[in-house]
Order: sequence, then C-alpha cells, then structure tokens
Amino acid sequence: MTADDPLPSWNEGPAKASIFKFVRTTTDPASADYVRPEDRIATFDNDGTLWSEQPHYFQFAFALDQIKAMAPGYPEWQETEPFKSALTGDGESIKRLLTGDIQALLEIVAATHFGMTTEEFEATVRAWLASARHSGTGRRYTDMVFQPMLELLKYLRANGFKTFIVSGGGIEFMRTFAEETYGIPHEQVIGSSGKLKFEMREAGPVLLKLAEVNFIDDNAGKPVAIQHHIGRRPIAAFGNSDGDLQMLQWVTGGNGVRFALLVRHTDAIREWAYDRDSHVGRLGRALEEVNEKGWTVVDMKQDWWRIFPFE
Amino acid sequence: MTADDPLPSWNEGPAKASIFKFVRTTTDPASADYVRPEDRIATFDNDGTLWSEQPHYFQFAFALDQIKAMAPGYPEWQETEPFKSALTGDGESIKRLLTGDIQALLEIVAATHFGMTTEEFEATVRAWLASARHSGTGRRYTDMVFQPMLELLKYLRANGFKTFIVSGGGIEFMRTFAEETYGIPHEQVIGSSGKLKFEMREAGPVLLKLAEVNFIDDNAGKPVAIQHHIGRRPIAAFGNSDGDLQMLQWVTGGNGVRFALLVRHTDAIREWAYDRDSHVGRLGRALEEVNEKGWTVVDMKQDWWRIFPFE
Repeated sequence: MTADDPLPSWNEGPAKASIFKFVRTTTDPASADYVRPEDRIATFDNDGTLWSEQPHYFQFAFALDQIKAMAPGYPEWQETEPFKSALTGDGESIKRLLTGDIQALLEIVAATHFGMTTEEFEATVRAWLASARHSGTGRRYTDMVFQPMLELLKYLRANGFKTFIVSGGGIEFMRTFAEETYGIPHEQVIGSSGKLKFEMREAGPVLLKLAEVNFIDDNAGKPVAIQHHIGRRPIAAFGNSDGDLQMLQWVTGGNGVRFALLVRHTDAIREWAYDRDSHVGRLGRALEEVNEKGWTVVDMKQDWWRIFPFE
Repeated sequence: MTADDPLPSWNEGPAKASIFKFVRTTTDPASADYVRPEDRIATFDNDGTLWSEQPHYFQFAFALDQIKAMAPGYPEWQETEPFKSALTGDGESIKRLLTGDIQALLEIVAATHFGMTTEEFEATVRAWLASARHSGTGRRYTDMVFQPMLELLKYLRANGFKTFIVSGGGIEFMRTFAEETYGIPHEQVIGSSGKLKFEMREAGPVLLKLAEVNFIDDNAGKPVAIQHHIGRRPIAAFGNSDGDLQMLQWVTGGNGVRFALLVRHTDAIREWAYDRDSHVGRLGRALEEVNEKGWTVVDMKQDWWRIFPFE
C-alpha cells in the first residue's frame, strides 16, 4: 500500500492485483481490450457483498422491528403465527422463521412492506435506519458496510465505470440509503419489488405498494433484471453467494475482458464466517465454477486489512 | 433567436419562454426553487413526442416488414389473419388491423418480437433501421425525429438534467437507436417489455424473449415504470397523447417547481395534423387539464421553425 493507493483497505495479494489488472486493461486506450466508457458497467450484489447479512438480512431486521412497532394495533398477533414468533424476538424463533416456511416470511414482508404509498414507506425506512442498531455490533446498519468495497466502488467510478446494485433486497428499501452510503443513485439500484398502483387522491397522485410480487431479483432473475434495467451486459460483477451465480455467468459469458468477484465470509472475529451451510448468503455452487471461469475470490480474513469503516 | 440560442428551431413564443423560465428557475443556485442536480430528472415519451408516429407507430412498421421478410417460411400466413392483412400491405387493411381487435395486433407483435434472444432481436432491429424507409417521406425512421426536441434534450442535459425515455414502445426496440439518435443511454430508456428467460447454452448464456407480456408502459403504467426504474419523481415530463396523462399528473403533482409539456400535431404540411380522433397518439383528455395545471402546449405549426433535421 502506498500513499496514493486507491484501495488502501485491501491487502496486497491476487484479489487486489486482479482488480488493478482488469481496470488497467479495460481503460487504457492503448490496450487491445480497451472498453469505451459507455460499456463500463459494473453490477454489485448488496447483502453480504456491500454490507453484512448476519445474523439475518438487515431488511428482515427492519421487518421484525416494524412488526414490534405495529403490534399494539394488532393484538391478535400475540397469538397468531408468524407474528407471535417475530414478536418473541429470540434468536431461535427468528432463525426458524427464516429457514422454514416461505409463506410465513412472506406474511411478515407483506405486513410491513405493502399497503402504504411509496413515500410513506421511504419515510418509515429512513426513520428506522436513523435509529436502529445491529444486535451484535450495536452499530447502525449503514455503518456495517465493507470499507474495501466502498473504495472499490469509488475506484471504478473514478475510472469511468457506472456502478449498479443488483440485489435480492427490496428496491425501495435499498434506495433509501444507497446514494448516501454507496454513492449509487436511485436509478442505478435494482432489486426485488412488489406491484405498484397509481392512484389519484384528494391531495394529489400517489403510488400505492400492493401485496403482490412484481419481480424477485435473485438467481436467474439477476441477468433478467440487468437486461430490463440496464439493457446491456455489464463487464464486471461482484457477489458473495449462489444467488449471484447467474449474474456472474451472464457477465463473464460476454466477449472481451470480463471480471467477476466473489466475497467469501471467512473472518469469524471481525465479521462472520460462513458459506455452504449458512441460512443466508449460502455459497457453494458458485465456488465450484471459480477455477474454470477464472473468477476472483476475496478471502475477507486474508485480503481485507480493514472490514468496516468504524474499525 | 440569437447566435447562442440553445433552441434555434423553436420560434419565440410562450412555449419556448416557459422552457427557459423553468430551467433558469431550477438551476440558478440563488433561486428559491433551485433543484440539486441529482433531482433534475426529465422524462420523455417517444412516439409522437421525439419522433413521428404516422401513418402508424414506427415499431409497427418494423413488425409489418418482419412479417413480410418471414413470410416465405410460413406459407399458411397467406390465408390466415391477421398475417394475410399484414402481407397485403394496403393502407386500409393496415389501419383496420391497428384500430380493430387487439388480439390481431398482439399476434403480429408476438410473431416478430419473441422467440429469439435479446441479441438476435437487437441485430434484426438494427438491420431494419439501417435499410427501411418511411412510406410517406422516403426517409429513414431515425431521421424523422423532431429537431426542436433534440435541441431540448441537449439543452436540459447541458443544465444538469438526466433525460429518460418513458414510452409505450418496446424497451429493446427503442434501445437500439436511442443512444445514437437522442444521446440517451440504454439504462435511461424505459418502455413496454416481454418476459425474459435466462438460458445456459453450449455457446454460453442467453436471454430468451418469451411471448408473455411483462409490462405495458402506457397510461397509469408510466408513473409505475418511473418508480421502478428511476425511483424518484421527475421534475419535468414531455408527452403528446392521452397515454402520457398520468405521467404528467405524477410529475406535476410533486412539490416545488414542475414542468409538463404536450406536443400538439398541428402541421398537416410539414408533419401530420391530428388529435382527438386519431388512431395513434389520441390527444383529448390530457388537453382538458392543460389550463388548470399550467402545462405548456407546443403547437408544432406555430412553435417550431423546423420540424425534422433534414428540412
């Protein structure tokens, strides 16, 4: 690391070297693999790639907190699953919710994410992000972002790349903090979404969030979402789980120099260590393609000198 | 008009003055209605707003030409509607197709827009745009864009606006020319779309265009699409038909200074003259809100000194 190193939180090693090599190759006009700025598109998963995702997805923590906040208005929840489990708040009940029946999970999402206008939802998420603290670290959720990835986003943008989020998280949930936290504007955030309804009210038009799935931006949904939103194939993709596999395949399946990177959670002390058997961010199948495809793997413990900005 | 007029094809008048006033008000840091650059979002309809749409939508002309090109492989089309009508090519049959049963129209769209990969489709549209000529003017379709609107797009971008297309046209159809023709990159083009399927083939991954509607970007679909793709409310919107009404309502329903403009096709000599009774680009309901809402109306005959770049 030197004084003008654009990636000071990355230890020297193959991962860091592969990033530098990719950017040099694609941005040097004298390079045979030069890519014009319009085509320098880079897509990033969010949960587990740009911020942590343990002990459960942060958006799920939001949903649980909302259930608690809403509970006084719904006394029947005290005796009705899945709300009863959500309200007990103990780790084991929550884990059962996350790993069990998808229907239970959807009920919790529906109760907390739908039936309001987009503007009401945004205000609720903003208020939550400003006050909520992570149960393990006591930090704000938006502080639990990966410093090396913030540097990488900035470095790519300084080299003419347009950076996008392509994540399974809710598109409107992520947009409330992506600009401030990652420097990524709303229109470059792609995620899962529910259907919306345009409604004319006395005070003016609103968009109502309906309890109906519009799009799930995970697995094979990621290349599809990339095509709908971006309309061209990115030349670089960054993920951390099997849910990112098809995005990485799509991106590296194109012509010319391509770059794909998987973040491995290997640091049980500073962050968390998990892969194949995790209930979130499972990483197994995608790892099997790494060697054949020449993808870069980041070993958080080895490759990252600093993980969180607050360290 | 002066030598450094950014809108030289606009005659002096209330429409041109309203554009200048809006841009000055929102970009002058000393103005009470100053808007920070991130929020300077402007959305444009395409058919009838940025290019012509007579005697029928240009994308429909593409579909008809494709039907003709594909016909040798489908001898049964000579005797089967709606293909039979499409193949006769006479104006009355085509108009009946356009104004009649929506199912007939969908069959023609399905036959020409689905069942291939996104890359195959893009190549087909590009080849068509390079060779096809408009039946009335003999010009390339991408030459039949409105010079005043090209100037307006450029002027807004020079003032820190991000310009988007939000149109009923096919998203992948429009992306093949929007960058070159309008200076609007793929990721800022929003349109109607079909479902896509990610498929791993021997030669690598592809996205297959399925014969299933994903989204119709018209009427109340426009504000919904704006929210999904852009994630914030634009401060300016430009349209020409009742299909743009909800977009204009949504944009001007927000706080602060807002701008909405409707292009009226009033020049039967240089372009076409039509409104309430047209089979494409019908304009009636939206006009009724103009006065109450303070929207700007462009009278093409009066307000545009030049319509097409080739004039």
